[in-house]
Amino acid sequence: MRALVYAKNPKLQNVPEPQRLPGQALIRVELAGICNTDIEITQGYSNYRGILGHEFVGKVVESDDLHLVDKRVVGSIDVPCGGCKFCRMNMPNYCSNRMTMGMDRWQGCLADYVVLPEVNLTVVPDNVPSMVAAFAEPVSSALQILELATIGQEDSVIVLGDGKLGLLTAQVLKVRDVDVTVLGKHVDKLARVSKMGIECGFVDEYSGMADVVVDCTGSPEGLLKAIDLVRPRGVVVVKSLYHDTGRLNLTPIVDKELTCIGSRGGSMRDAIELLSTGAIDVAPLIEAVYPANEIAAAFKRASRRGSLKVLVDFSDVS
Amino acid sequence: MRALVYAKNPKLQNVPEPQRLPGQALIRVELAGICNTDIEITQGYSNYRGILGHEFVGKVVESDDLHLVDKRVVGSIDVPCGGCKFCRMNMPNYCSNRMTMGMDRWQGCLADYVVLPEVNLTVVPDNVPSMVAAFAEPVSSALQILELATIGQEDSVIVLGDGKLGLLTAQVLKVRDVDVTVLGKHVDKLARVSKMGIECGFVDEYSGMADVVVDCTGSPEGLLKAIDLVRPRGVVVVKSLYHDTGRLNLTPIVDKELTCIGSRGGSMRDAIELLSTGAIDVAPLIEAVYPANEIAAAFKRASRRGSLKVLVDFSDVS
Repeated sequence: MRALVYAKNPKLQNVPEPQRLPGQALIRVELAGICNTDIEITQGYSNYRGILGHEFVGKVVESDDLHLVDKRVVGSIDVPCGGCKFCRMNMPNYCSNRMTMGMDRWQGCLADYVVLPEVNLTVVPDNVPSMVAAFAEPVSSALQILELATIGQEDSVIVLGDGKLGLLTAQVLKVRDVDVTVLGKHVDKLARVSKMGIECGFVDEYSGMADVVVDCTGSPEGLLKAIDLVRPRGVVVVKSLYHDTGRLNLTPIVDKELTCIGSRGGSMRDAIELLSTGAIDVAPLIEAVYPANEIAAAFKRASRRGSLKVLVDFSDVS
Repeated sequence: MRALVYAKNPKLQNVPEPQRLPGQALIRVELAGICNTDIEITQGYSNYRGILGHEFVGKVVESDDLHLVDKRVVGSIDVPCGGCKFCRMNMPNYCSNRMTMGMDRWQGCLADYVVLPEVNLTVVPDNVPSMVAAFAEPVSSALQILELATIGQEDSVIVLGDGKLGLLTAQVLKVRDVDVTVLGKHVDKLARVSKMGIECGFVDEYSGMADVVVDCTGSPEGLLKAIDLVRPRGVVVVKSLYHDTGRLNLTPIVDKELTCIGSRGGSMRDAIELLSTGAIDVAPLIEAVYPANEIAAAFKRASRRGSLKVLVDFSDVS
């Protein structure tokens, strides 16, 4: 099958089809997204060297659970090890040795086929187009902020960054009745935010202080700015992973008595439920859709500074 | 008067007595403590260049508030600017431009006299010896952890570090019914912890995972270890300020979805109240008491790796 395997400049390779084990499903990938983390991995953010990708929609072709076969699904990315203290206590979410699809000891989904445990899969309702369902993972990640940080009705929240993660996060928070403002640097992107009915402004012109700042910049400078923009005793949510954080000065964290919360993926079920309401507009977030055979070009496009979401269509060859 | 002014190897200098303004008190320092932060400042942690010191007990000699005159007091270290948004909203605790005694634009208390706003002062009850009251600032700092982090009855808390900050913090948490374990590296210091009736162990032999880890090591490696010791979605409390944090890798904070809370000084009133109950045993925390004229030696002693609290007695000359 075709797959995008780790390399400095990754291109499509021919690799053997993955084999599923009992309790796992074999999925024919229809559409897969390229995420900043995929790009960071090729730049040395982790030691992962397998097939890239952790955002997909696909159809189950083989599974022990017959209810899943032939269904369109999305999948959550963490695979608990099954053997550690937390797995044995039936708290797989806390697994300290979990594998992560396309990032850590589990093959990714930028490929014709991917294997995942059946419990990781969420069926996509018919009213959700695949192009929309492909955003389930980043939407779950935005929803997770609300799980981890206590955001009150009175709290002002800044989403720092007008890129794709910022735009999506702001939409999700807005739908959940959060008082959100997007701060960015790009006239065209901020115009897009404004069109969505979300408050926005230029970060360099902002003089206030927010109760909560969500850093969606994907850069260490962004995190420093987030720390700067939050009020004393406020909350900074760290969404991004980068391959090099540089020198991070902790002084302001202690000095302002900040709470910094690291947040990653959340519930795919909640994400699909939210997407099925139609409340999230993903169209303005899509940069381009490439056929799988042009995946090297897709990856280059996604790597461009300021690029929005690049999707790869694997449905062209069956 | 005599004062310890910033220098790479600070020694006693003769400087003019400070002048108080209306609303401020002039205090004759009796006993002052040397804190790790003082040492970090001399090693370049901040740009502060004035008189060092932020832990003291002393007697008010001049004040507009006649109830304070001749009283033994301790003082909280932050002085709000009075002009910023938060000060004007009467929320001086959130002042984004506050000065800090002995650290930032406000002269410190390693001197014969110090000036502080009257509102910063807390009268020390007669049953609290000055040697005990001198610990009010670090005790308030330990109490502040409970203000900022929600620690449940079921939560296991690790205090990382068996130095003076760790010993004091663990005692305060224990008194507040927290399930606390001190992890350290030194047989003699851990024996002292054990004698206090507090659970302890060697950090390198510990294999568990705590709900909350309070980093009292004062080193960047300690913070990394704290991140390692906390369970996924757990809380890391950052107590220490260092002049060089090195390269801090944020990946585990996002990956384990940790909450990192920066914590500094808290309520001096609560600290004095707790100290007046006699529940905190400060004797095992004292390394030595030096007369003010030997303050250079005191500072050297306090700078020694693993040193406990060094106090300086300014009461020898009136």
